[in-house]
Formats: sequence, C-alpha cells, structure tokens
Amino acid sequence: MAKKAEQRLVVGELIAPEIEELLAAADPDGARETMLDLLDPELADVIEALDEEPRAVAFAVLPAERAAAVLDLLPSDVQEELVERLSPDHTAAVVSEMPVDDRVELVGDLSDELAEPLLESLEASERAETERQLEYPEGSVGRLMTADYLTVRPEWTVERALGHLRERGAEAETLDTLYVVDGAGRLTDQVRLKTLVLAEPGQVCDALREGHVVSVKVEDDQEQVVYFSERYDTPVLPVVDGENVLVGIVTFDDVADVAEEETTEDVQKMGAVQALEHPYLSASLMELVKKRGVWLAILFVAGIVTVFAMGQFHEQLQDEKLAILALFIPLIIASGGNSGTQAASLIIRAMAIGEVDLRDAPRVARRELASGLLLGSVLGVLGMAVTCVVGLWLFREAAHPMGEALHAGFAIGTAIVGVVVTGTLIGGLLPFALKGLGADPATCSTPFVTTLVDVAGLVIYFLTASLILRM
Amino acid sequence: MAKKAEQRLVVGELIAPEIEELLAAADPDGARETMLDLLDPELADVIEALDEEPRAVAFAVLPAERAAAVLDLLPSDVQEELVERLSPDHTAAVVSEMPVDDRVELVGDLSDELAEPLLESLEASERAETERQLEYPEGSVGRLMTADYLTVRPEWTVERALGHLRERGAEAETLDTLYVVDGAGRLTDQVRLKTLVLAEPGQVCDALREGHVVSVKVEDDQEQVVYFSERYDTPVLPVVDGENVLVGIVTFDDVADVAEEETTEDVQKMGAVQALEHPYLSASLMELVKKRGVWLAILFVAGIVTVFAMGQFHEQLQDEKLAILALFIPLIIASGGNSGTQAASLIIRAMAIGEVDLRDAPRVARRELASGLLLGSVLGVLGMAVTCVVGLWLFREAAHPMGEALHAGFAIGTAIVGVVVTGTLIGGLLPFALKGLGADPATCSTPFVTTLVDVAGLVIYFLTASLILRM
Repeated sequence: MAKKAEQRLVVGELIAPEIEELLAAADPDGARETMLDLLDPELADVIEALDEEPRAVAFAVLPAERAAAVLDLLPSDVQEELVERLSPDHTAAVVSEMPVDDRVELVGDLSDELAEPLLESLEASERAETERQLEYPEGSVGRLMTADYLTVRPEWTVERALGHLRERGAEAETLDTLYVVDGAGRLTDQVRLKTLVLAEPGQVCDALREGHVVSVKVEDDQEQVVYFSERYDTPVLPVVDGENVLVGIVTFDDVADVAEEETTEDVQKMGAVQALEHPYLSASLMELVKKRGVWLAILFVAGIVTVFAMGQFHEQLQDEKLAILALFIPLIIASGGNSGTQAASLIIRAMAIGEVDLRDAPRVARRELASGLLLGSVLGVLGMAVTCVVGLWLFREAAHPMGEALHAGFAIGTAIVGVVVTGTLIGGLLPFALKGLGADPATCSTPFVTTLVDVAGLVIYFLTASLILRM
Repeated sequence: MAKKAEQRLVVGELIAPEIEELLAAADPDGARETMLDLLDPELADVIEALDEEPRAVAFAVLPAERAAAVLDLLPSDVQEELVERLSPDHTAAVVSEMPVDDRVELVGDLSDELAEPLLESLEASERAETERQLEYPEGSVGRLMTADYLTVRPEWTVERALGHLRERGAEAETLDTLYVVDGAGRLTDQVRLKTLVLAEPGQVCDALREGHVVSVKVEDDQEQVVYFSERYDTPVLPVVDGENVLVGIVTFDDVADVAEEETTEDVQKMGAVQALEHPYLSASLMELVKKRGVWLAILFVAGIVTVFAMGQFHEQLQDEKLAILALFIPLIIASGGNSGTQAASLIIRAMAIGEVDLRDAPRVARRELASGLLLGSVLGVLGMAVTCVVGLWLFREAAHPMGEALHAGFAIGTAIVGVVVTGTLIGGLLPFALKGLGADPATCSTPFVTTLVDVAGLVIYFLTASLILRM
C-alpha cells in the first residue's frame, strides 16, 4: 500500500530539477524534449513536482495532445492552478484533445469563474457535447461516459464490419467490443473484436453475437459500473438511456477511478468524516473542519449521556470498597470500544463487497456473541490479573489484602466479559440496523460505535462490578 | 455500496427454489436447462443459494465448461464443500477447463487433503503447470498470471500476425494486446490488436509497436498489478522473470480482485483486525477470535497505563471541588479518540492512494494543528455549556453555584481544546511514524490511536482542568 507514493516520488524528484534547470537556462525546447521521452503518468508526476512558476511554463510548451493526457492525471488543485494561469484559448486547445469524459470531469471540477470562459472558448460542437454531459448529476454514469464506441448492425458481414472499423476505429478510445444495435439505435447485443478478427470475412455479425450484453443506465449511480464491471468481468460497459438506446460507454480507467473514489468515501465515513470533495492536501481548512466538525459535535452531544451515567455511579465511588472501580473506567470502556470497532469494520466491509446481507443478521449475531464471549474471557482473565496486582497495592493496609484484591479482580474481570460482549454485539449489529433503515452501513462509523459502547459499557461495568464487590 | 448484496440476493432467491423443485421431482435435465439460460455470475448466485444437498447435484449436472466458470465465482467455503462431495475425477474434469490462474487460486485455497487427490487426477501437463505456479508465494504476481497470451516477432507482417492470431487466438483469455518478444523470448514492446486490425496487411509489426511496455515481475507483490494497471490505464499487464523473459499476463478480472482484497485488508487492519484469510462468514470462529484477540490483548495491555494515570489523579477526585472532573472522563477521552480516528482515517487513505507521502508530514502537522484548534474550540464551547448546566445542579448547595459552575465550565472547556488538539495530532502523525518505520500505515488502526489518545488525553485533562479549578 505504501509503495505508490514512493514510486511517484522517485520519478518526480529525479526529473523535475532537470526541467527546472533547463527552463531557468531559457531552453524550453530542451525541457520539452526531456519531457516528451516520458510516459504520461511520469510526465504528470514531473509537472506536479515543479514549483508553480516553472510548472505553468513547462506545461505550456507541451504539445496539446500530451498536455491533455497530463492535465487529466493531475490533482484538481493543480488543474485549477494551470487553467488559471493559461489563457482560455490555450486551455481550450488542450481540453479539446481530451476524450469527452475527461473533459467533463475537468470542467465539472473547476470553479464557475474558470469553467465559463473555458466553455466559451471551446468549439461549438465540443462545447455542446460537454454541456450536455454536465447536465447529468455528479456521481451519475452520465458524467463518466464517452462517445468513442463503435456499433455494428446484425446483418453486416465481417468484411463490412472490419471496413467500418478501419474507417472509424482510429478515434475510438477502446476497441475490445463492438455493440450490436437495431435500426432505432437500441442496444441488442455485443461482438468481441477478438471474435470478429477470428471469423471468416463472409460471416454475418448476427452469428458472432455473444448472446447477452450487460449495460448500465445513464442516470444510474456511478457505483453501478464498478459492481457490474467486477461481476461480469468486463473492462468496458455500454451505457443506455431509458429507451435502451446506446448513448455511450464507460471504460476501464473510469471504472478503476470510481472504485477508488467509493472506497475513499467508505473509509472516510467509517472514520466519522463526511466524504471530502477534494484530496486531503487540496481540501481547504474550512472543508476539513466542516466535514469533521459535524460528526464530532454529534458524537459529543451523544456522549453527554456518559456524564449522567457517571453521575449515577459517582456516589458509589466514594465508598472505599468501590473506589478501585474508578481507576479502571478508561481501560474498560476502551476495551468495549475496541471490540465494537473490530466487529463493525469486519461487517461493514463484508457488506460493501456483498459477502453479507440483511438476512445474515442472525448468523452474524451468533458469531459475534460467540466471538465476544471468547475475546471477553481472554481480556477478563487479563483484567483480573491486573486488578489483583493493583488491588494488592491499594489494599495494602487492609486486614486481608489478598482476599480484597481477589474479590476486586473477580468483579472487574466479570464486568469486562460483559462489556466486551456488548461492544462486539453493538459493533456487529449496528451496520444491519443502519442498512435496514436505508442508510449506508459505513455511516456506522467506528467513533459512533465507540460512543454507543461507552454508554452501555459504563452501565454494565458499574452494575456488574459493584454487585459482585458488595457480595 | 449496499446494492451489491441486494442484487445478488434477488437472482439467487428467485431461481434457486425452482431448481430445488426440479431436482426434487427428479428432473435434472429440466434443472440444467433452466440453469444454462443464466449468465455465469447469476448461475453462481443460484448455486450458492441452494442447500448443500441439491447444490452438489445441481453443480454436477452442469457441463464442465460452465461448471468451471461457476466454481471460480463461488466463495471458498462453497468451493471446498463441492470439491469434497464430487469425485476427484469429476472435479479434475471441471478444473481442467479453468484458465491456469483460476485453477491455481482454487487449488491454493483448498486444504491439502482435497488438493492432493485433485492434483493427481489432473492431466500430467496441467498438473505440472499448476504445481509450477503454486510454487510462487501466495500474494505474488506469479500466482495470478495466466499463459493465454499471444506474442509477435517484430519482423512479422500484419498478415502473418493475424494468421498467428487466427490459429492461436481462440484459447487466449484476452486479446487486447499482443506482445513483441525477441529471439530469447524477452519482452521488448507491445502492439494493440486495434492497431493491427487497422493496419495494412503488408506492414511489419515493428512499425506498429507502441514504443513502450509496462510489465510486472513474477515475484512482485500482487499490489503492484493494481498500482500499474491504474497508473498506466491498462487492463492487462505482461509478467516477466528476472531476465525480462515474458512468462504470463495478468488480466483485468484479477486486477479488480486484488484491488478488492487489498482494500478489505486495509479496512480490517484499520479496525485492528489482522487480515482474515477467508470471507467473514466462511472464516472459522477460531480464525475470527485469533485475528482479533491478538490486537485486543495488545491494546488492553497498552491501556493499563490509563489505570496508573487514573491512580495519579485519584486522590484529587476526593477533593470536593475537583469531583466534577470524574463525571466528564469518558466524554473527554472519547472526544480525543474521535478526533484522532478522523485524522488517522483521512491520512491513512490519502497515503493508500498516493496523495500523501512522508515528505508531506510537516504540511499535514500544520493542517491538523489548525483543524484540531478549530474543532477543539467548537467542542470546548459545547463542553463548557454542558459543564455549566451539570455544575449548577452539582453545586446547588454551594455559596455561589453560578460562580463555581462557570469556573468548572471554563476548566473543562479549556481541557477539551487540549485533548482534541492532541488527538488530532496523534491521529494525523502516527501513520507517518509507522510508515517511516517501514510498517503499513493502516496498522495504525483506529483503536490503536484511541488507546494512545486515552492516555495522553487523561493526563492533559487532569493537569489542565485541575490547574484551572485550583486557581
């Protein structure tokens, strides 16, 4: 997991200084030559590693086609900065080299003050295409699709299909699959390029059809492409409208991007952060604080219950025999919270990848009850041992230090079993409750579980331990 | 995120009862006809939804090719169960229809008692191929690759290459790309099928080369394929040995599987669970308990420090003026833990996708300090208000209830700012410390952060609040 950043770093740090030197020596041609030897991802790393000033110069000397590929790979704050520094005409020349999906993504991410003049500088047809696709809501399939696909008619021969391919194929982003459409443009099937190439020239396309085609709807949530692409092992998905008319395709690179984006959202939600709209380092301080502050405040208010729970047991703690309980409060509720976090992480992820669904709730409850009892017993024994040691010191002046220490150890050890079982069950079942209510189980953030377990854990701890200590 | 399981459920629950009825009516042919109408993923759902007895019968009536595709899609506990119920010869017939990567994965997941007889029942060449690939360590690229790729020589004409394709292409798993190798089999370049199809028959392959090819090494960690596939937008990656000889390819479906697996591992690690070897519902209770117990026990032992921290401040709590502090202990340390969890989730994910690396540590520290101060202030004000209300009740018999309540509110509010800032900094910087030490930042599980913050938070809370309360 840690490799990615390192590898990116190496290329950027190796080559960026060289480019900076060439530019400082007023040798933009030399800089361009060096840059053109790189593949797009490496070139993007170099551009990113440069300082703001040389970055704009280096980007400006790139031919439009390479610049377009690089711009697409840059983080959104760098994109915004470059668009701000270049003239709208220059940017438009670069942007018109982008496939429409990348163009739509870029323009959609820009502030209105930058997006407007850029759209106006685009050619009329490109502008219309971009604006049409921008009308689909963010996060929908419509925003991701590109029009660079090829269709064949079922009655065409292989020869005609290959001729069509030679004529139009050069622009197509991918050519893994050709789509079979009827006279009204409705998607009816697909033919693999592989099948077409291996077939006899006289065969009819109808005979080469796969017999099935999985498509996504243009208004679907973008998650759908990740799910279908994985489920049906297909790197490219055709997109249809409400009438089943083929309107675009979503390609492999977008599927991978969406998968990464959705996972990031899930991880952030599990950490009780509302999904950020920008990468961590590009997000404004205000965005960071707002996306965290809301949950933090909600959890704080929910946590006020613990103050009252503590109030209930406060007077007990004045009792000398029970005073030892106070020392273990943070440790005990932390253990409950930790077991709850573990259970919640397992279940939320299992739900995300479709391993566990609502009907599995009873099975999960049984597994978590058993796990909680076993884990609780282990921690209970540990806790008993620790309590005995602490108790021997605390009760050193009592009549029977050993007896009192063992008594306290038994009380606290038993309480731990109860707290861990409770934590495990809350952590394991809360995702089901949230899903049943139609919410995203990932919202069941680990801090949320911890807060619930804090309250329940305190009550169980005090009730169990003080009951036993009073015996 | 929640959609996946629902959609799988629907197909399985709709069709499985029908199959069960047909089998109960001793009509295996009818059951087979119904099943053959389904696509592989749906068929796998149906097989999974059946009970153990009819499942084995339904699976056994499938033609070997479909059975192979379905077996690959089933969870490992169901795979194991089916292999156990069928004869080694029947299983071997099915398994030999699998591409070698799927076969290696299946055999690698089986227990030795099932894997041995299965391997012995395979044809000699398939067995050798399977065993050779099983020698690569689990989690390496070697385990994922398949040999179904096509190569061309640079001096071949397009016509010859297409002829080679027609002859050998039917077996190839994917045909997006053909690889250019030299006389010794070393990978030198690639030609896209699209380019080949669009070229004139007389052109030489050398002229159609892409000019670059990104490959992975057979002994690389499997994460590498996810990273390269995303970075270079390529659904298929060639695999080379130490001499750069082409030995296989890794295809799109395996890349997606590895990406999902790696994310699951990260999420589990963040929840302080060691990566499970099986899906949650297939893992044995012992596996579940072991993978969680180790961390839970480590965190418990680390948490013992809080007992001593509480011991230090225990006598202070006997002081009537300071007694109010005890009520807020769980709330205050929870707030520190929550802010730490938020920061850690953001940074760990940003590191995983390469947005943040070690050199960003100072920038992250500044951002988290500022975020912590702002978030702490919000919670501090909230905490002050709550304390005042509680204080008015607690000090209702004192001489100046309002004065004492405000004093306590100020003390606890200030302490909260300190605890939240500490939590934020620990959560934001611990991933850097772990990464600097060569560990996986995801190991910096949220419970780990919480435990650290508990200790630091308690000390800061008591020191700050009691200092102010004594003023």
